[in-house]
Amino acid sequence: MQVSRRGDVDPFIVMDIMHMAAEAEAEGRHVIHMEVGQPGTPAPSTARKALAKALDEDALGYTLTPGLPELREGIANLHKDWYGVDLDPDRILITPGSSGAFVLCFSALFDTGQRIGIASPGYPSYRQILKAQGLQPELIQTEPQDGYQLRPDQITDAGLDGVMVASPANPTGTMLNRDRMEGLMDAAREAGTTFISDEIYHGLHYGERAVSALEIGDDAIVINSFSKYFSMTGWRVGWMVLPEEMVRPVEKLAQHLFICAPHASQIAALGALSARDELEENVQTYERNRAIVLNGLEAAGIKRFAPPDGGFYVYADISHLGDNSLRLAKDFLAEEGVAVTPGIDFDPERGATMWRLSYAADTSDIADGMERLAKFTARRN
Amino acid sequence: MQVSRRGDVDPFIVMDIMHMAAEAEAEGRHVIHMEVGQPGTPAPSTARKALAKALDEDALGYTLTPGLPELREGIANLHKDWYGVDLDPDRILITPGSSGAFVLCFSALFDTGQRIGIASPGYPSYRQILKAQGLQPELIQTEPQDGYQLRPDQITDAGLDGVMVASPANPTGTMLNRDRMEGLMDAAREAGTTFISDEIYHGLHYGERAVSALEIGDDAIVINSFSKYFSMTGWRVGWMVLPEEMVRPVEKLAQHLFICAPHASQIAALGALSARDELEENVQTYERNRAIVLNGLEAAGIKRFAPPDGGFYVYADISHLGDNSLRLAKDFLAEEGVAVTPGIDFDPERGATMWRLSYAADTSDIADGMERLAKFTARRN
Repeated sequence: MQVSRRGDVDPFIVMDIMHMAAEAEAEGRHVIHMEVGQPGTPAPSTARKALAKALDEDALGYTLTPGLPELREGIANLHKDWYGVDLDPDRILITPGSSGAFVLCFSALFDTGQRIGIASPGYPSYRQILKAQGLQPELIQTEPQDGYQLRPDQITDAGLDGVMVASPANPTGTMLNRDRMEGLMDAAREAGTTFISDEIYHGLHYGERAVSALEIGDDAIVINSFSKYFSMTGWRVGWMVLPEEMVRPVEKLAQHLFICAPHASQIAALGALSARDELEENVQTYERNRAIVLNGLEAAGIKRFAPPDGGFYVYADISHLGDNSLRLAKDFLAEEGVAVTPGIDFDPERGATMWRLSYAADTSDIADGMERLAKFTARRN
Repeated sequence: MQVSRRGDVDPFIVMDIMHMAAEAEAEGRHVIHMEVGQPGTPAPSTARKALAKALDEDALGYTLTPGLPELREGIANLHKDWYGVDLDPDRILITPGSSGAFVLCFSALFDTGQRIGIASPGYPSYRQILKAQGLQPELIQTEPQDGYQLRPDQITDAGLDGVMVASPANPTGTMLNRDRMEGLMDAAREAGTTFISDEIYHGLHYGERAVSALEIGDDAIVINSFSKYFSMTGWRVGWMVLPEEMVRPVEKLAQHLFICAPHASQIAALGALSARDELEENVQTYERNRAIVLNGLEAAGIKRFAPPDGGFYVYADISHLGDNSLRLAKDFLAEEGVAVTPGIDFDPERGATMWRLSYAADTSDIADGMERLAKFTARRN
């Protein structure tokens, strides 16, 4: 048996690092995890309590395909609260994580061979999911001076069928302010290009709040998730906001592609919506961690990185240490017991001189990790 | 914004019936649900207990992409127990329901435009997922005298890239015995056609046990789920068994397409594996229900149906009542308050004279439903 051409995707290169880390831990070493894209915290207590109750009282069979009505209403309220946007809950569809939303969205919007623009560096699964669907990911090189985000002129004459932006972005944490988001949406509209906004890191910002595409227009598809701000990665529950005319077509497709998002996870997600105090404490932790990382990078002589406006990553230029980010990440893990993600996962071309550091772990681990980084770089300078 | 050609799929026609039923219930009527494909029982108590414990103790972040190692081992043991097959847990990948397994399997195996044979009547999502992936579903008409299952000669010269069988099947509950399964696998092997076996109704049988493709060869992909026998539909957790050479390619693809199956659901599924007594009681209930349905059909003058060897459906010929199975289902619901699924969901051509009746509900409801059926048909004869 053979894998299909479209299904022959690249692995996450960071998996090499994660396997090395697991081996080191099996030998009893303490590894500091700055490679993982998930909070160290569990789902908020209100989420766990809501599910514990439902386990006793509810059969937890299939939900309606668009999701639990109370959850969709709760998410509409969140949009009101975060952005001042009045959103009809009927435009919200609960998905099995943002991953499920991408699969659904690409299937609903694009036919084989169509071209979808994505920023490079960017989340590696964008291009792999597109490829696995028989679509053509178009990597658009973004520049440090643009905060690694797209410019409108990169959409205007690109002949794209779709374009996807992420703000805050992965791996950089950079954000698009309202003017820039509007400029990109205008350019896409004029070019007849469908606009998709990945807003999975919303809620995690350290200055200005993140702007939703929904504040600007109803002709975008917005994808979000309970994984990051709500600290529920393993629960696999996300959502999409659809233009009205796409609601019914996408619901039909979702009936067949996944029937519904996991019921237990939806109950937990509904509980999480009322955990705002606990979640804001997490954000304060990330803010402290972020300061430690930025200072630590500076102290370690790593001075070029995009300003991490949100999320919990920083994407740093390590070109003065060498031009093989994977090799350097392996050395850092072997020598100092700290795992980071090599940039080549996010940018196959220019990522050879970049690392992504996640600061979602415990503050003490992060502080320790940065001290070890200083030792590591000191030996190489 | 417009839906793509491949994404423009058909809805489940039974949704019309389910909406009518919901309206009737909102008006206070008691509706008997013989249309739904899910057990009336919740997840087994051991499943719920395991999760309740984990909620207190575990952060429930991402699992490894192939799933929790203990769960994969437990499933390997289930294969030993059910079929006497020694299965390497490394060949098992935990998926977000069997739906997730289909999406993953089709992406991994087939390129745009390739042709995959499926039995008609059959589970409607097979053909819609294939279409949504840019693949070509080839509906192969099966015959009542073949128990609505494929014959080897229907594979031999069909020029198919893949073929999928289901035993017990949906909507018929018919099974392939070992000789017939072997005949189909041989025909596929000789034709160079990839063989996929949907075994989601295994564990639910009322005479001979169901035969797994894995008993016959390692060159099939097997898809299964905790939804039916384990009574965990809403949990969205299933599994695939892969030929050794496909393990790594499919794992890479799964990393991007869904990262992992829901962690909480995997914990519950692991708990469910030790609930065999409780689950066998469910099977005894279905067996009683099945007898009531078969007698009830006979009493109502409906005498042509395939022998439901397993699962919890019977697919019955109602051609003497009319040639519009949807209209008849709506009338049955309006007049007697019983919901059934019109055959056109499973067989767009010949399903106009067929109904699928599910007997997964409470025994008292099933008995009541069959009495109401007798009244309904009496008025029409």
